[in-house]
Amino acid sequence: MNIRQEARRMKLAAPKLAAMTNEERNGALREVGLALAAAKEEIFAANEEDLRQARENNISDAVYKRLKFDEGKLKSVIDGIDQLIALPDPVGKVQLYRQMDEGLILKRISCPIGVIGVIFEARPDALVQISSLCIKSGNCALLKGGKETARTNRVLFRVIYESVLKAGLPEGCLVQAELHNEIDELLQCDRDVDLLIPRGSNRFVQYIMNNTKIPVMGHADGVCHIYVDKKADLVQALPIIIDAKTQYTAACNAVETLLIHRDIAEEFLPSLKEELEKNQVKIRASKEVADMIGCETMAEEEFDTEYLELVISIKLVGNTEEAVDHINHFGSHHTDAILTEDQEAAEYFMQMVDSAGVYQNCSTRFADGFRYGFGAEVGISTGKIHARGPVGLEGLMTYKYRIYGHGQIVGDYAEGKKEFHFKDLQ
Amino acid sequence: MNIRQEARRMKLAAPKLAAMTNEERNGALREVGLALAAAKEEIFAANEEDLRQARENNISDAVYKRLKFDEGKLKSVIDGIDQLIALPDPVGKVQLYRQMDEGLILKRISCPIGVIGVIFEARPDALVQISSLCIKSGNCALLKGGKETARTNRVLFRVIYESVLKAGLPEGCLVQAELHNEIDELLQCDRDVDLLIPRGSNRFVQYIMNNTKIPVMGHADGVCHIYVDKKADLVQALPIIIDAKTQYTAACNAVETLLIHRDIAEEFLPSLKEELEKNQVKIRASKEVADMIGCETMAEEEFDTEYLELVISIKLVGNTEEAVDHINHFGSHHTDAILTEDQEAAEYFMQMVDSAGVYQNCSTRFADGFRYGFGAEVGISTGKIHARGPVGLEGLMTYKYRIYGHGQIVGDYAEGKKEFHFKDLQ
Repeated sequence: MNIRQEARRMKLAAPKLAAMTNEERNGALREVGLALAAAKEEIFAANEEDLRQARENNISDAVYKRLKFDEGKLKSVIDGIDQLIALPDPVGKVQLYRQMDEGLILKRISCPIGVIGVIFEARPDALVQISSLCIKSGNCALLKGGKETARTNRVLFRVIYESVLKAGLPEGCLVQAELHNEIDELLQCDRDVDLLIPRGSNRFVQYIMNNTKIPVMGHADGVCHIYVDKKADLVQALPIIIDAKTQYTAACNAVETLLIHRDIAEEFLPSLKEELEKNQVKIRASKEVADMIGCETMAEEEFDTEYLELVISIKLVGNTEEAVDHINHFGSHHTDAILTEDQEAAEYFMQMVDSAGVYQNCSTRFADGFRYGFGAEVGISTGKIHARGPVGLEGLMTYKYRIYGHGQIVGDYAEGKKEFHFKDLQ
Repeated sequence: MNIRQEARRMKLAAPKLAAMTNEERNGALREVGLALAAAKEEIFAANEEDLRQARENNISDAVYKRLKFDEGKLKSVIDGIDQLIALPDPVGKVQLYRQMDEGLILKRISCPIGVIGVIFEARPDALVQISSLCIKSGNCALLKGGKETARTNRVLFRVIYESVLKAGLPEGCLVQAELHNEIDELLQCDRDVDLLIPRGSNRFVQYIMNNTKIPVMGHADGVCHIYVDKKADLVQALPIIIDAKTQYTAACNAVETLLIHRDIAEEFLPSLKEELEKNQVKIRASKEVADMIGCETMAEEEFDTEYLELVISIKLVGNTEEAVDHINHFGSHHTDAILTEDQEAAEYFMQMVDSAGVYQNCSTRFADGFRYGFGAEVGISTGKIHARGPVGLEGLMTYKYRIYGHGQIVGDYAEGKKEFHFKDLQ
């Protein structure tokens, strides 16, 4: 397959998909859900084959769990499709409706971005999720999955693509790339691919970001912080810290660094240490902390470390300002929390920390599209352009401006023969 | 000056500027307006010096006009500042206010993007406009102007920066780079600069886009089309075409290509040719057209040409579909118009053409923030990520999510001990 040609073809097909109605797109999603359920034996068999080979390659338990596509995962992706169908149509929303002058009407209307490139490691369920999101939002998708589940991906893609064609969606609206070198080809398609969504490890996403001119939505690092203020409720603080570190250690929104106000260190650190050790969390800390509780020491410049495992960094700070400066310097602008009963300190922290999510008195693990009530999640973005934080369907949308005129020319307005009379009509 | 260090310093100062109130930011703008008026003799003298040197270098009349900073331009930038002051505050708007569960509140609040890099050729007025837009929106700006007006820029920058400091804005919120090699340094600052806005020629913008990992907002090409449908009002068509081509030929929204429905070619082409020639517009066309009216022929692959001068490309098409396909293939997704009284053809065209602006029966030259009633314009974007088309202040904004909790942890929701109860509170 020539990815450049496929991308070009897709770009020209994109307006056809964008013009389909919500009923047609929902009909295609319904077809996909039914077809996946009907093809489950074939899907599981292909996945068994992938898993067999993965075991031969001695992959870790965590990766094995991500590769596996079983009844539970199938149910979860089909539920996701049903939820998507129920969501309101993101296409064709009138965002601005303005009279510029008599008989000169301006409308801003939401529309799909066009061609989305999706590159993901492992996780065959991601293939189903992302293609469903693209169908709902009227976007074409060029998909490249991980080679570890190549057989599973192939069956899933075939079932999905056949279903959408059967439902009347345009040919070429979904394409699957299968060869690894096709990733680099895809990264070159900046003329035809409008947006890339990479899903995978820090290193993988960083590689994508560093090697393409196509806009990338996502995040590489997730160095999240919890700052325990001197006015924190210390009883409440412990379960929040444990949840943020251990509830799903490999998640990007898991906490990596604790900043503790120096005034409460002596009181808080011993119980914190006990609780972390009870939960098998290893402590690395500044010398000041290590001197107090006895643990591994770490250098200041290591505070940008994302562990994604049962390890946590701890440092003391003199006030909220110092905590904010540390976070803005070492953090990754993902999600950071303050624990405090002092509302002024909380507001200062939330104003000054330059992150997609700033929380008071709860776990950083809440940074997630489903938990925000968005219904479906495209991913989490640490960029500030386009979409930030957990991104729902709106991250796959843009808009266009329409003007309906009656022969108006700019010269008349430039020369003062006519004047604009702006009036919003909705 | 070390641009990387400046950018790093600016990144850390950005939250301070972002926390200032609308009154404080407007106060700074008022100070800037007064100081510019007071320093006018010094500004004009510096500009005279730049112009003298420019004349020695034999620059064109068009460029000379752009370099010149006189009473008229000063008045226009000060008027612009007054208009900005009158605009509503873009910072701190609550875009989402949702209860996730009892005592767990989610808010999405607009905030400045942070650090904007602005690179512009010539045009000292752009320096004033863009720094004012950044002040109004609470963004720090790293500015690099063209060397042709280095003296003018230096005075303007000093006056603006001293005024904002006097008004209480944080030190380092504006920085001017003066050396040409500093552009390449700035392009490397992807860790600290959140967005680049280049203003200048096609080639200049293309260079910026091709040589940085920082998101770029703007446009390189502006290959705009007018499609004259078989049901067009041909009397109305001529002034629209002449306006779109000649009212400001060097603008990105000037028309470059005419597509004419074959059924009306014989009737329309002679009067079109006459009108274009009367306005000194040179015609280049497909062989089919050239055979009918006698003009220079051009090859199919040349139809992606952006002339920005008094030259126009003409081609015949068999129907609206063919016009759309031509535009999506050869166009630059900027602004394209259909002239027709057939509303069905118009809706098809506006749905299927993949451009930031799609117009019916008016000039492409309306693509402009002021003409859209946005009050102030950051630029025009042909990208689909973040902002598209003419971009007002909102193109300089992002948002952050705040959660106010009372000790909530994700484990309770994951294990089913608690459930989300989403309720929008506004």
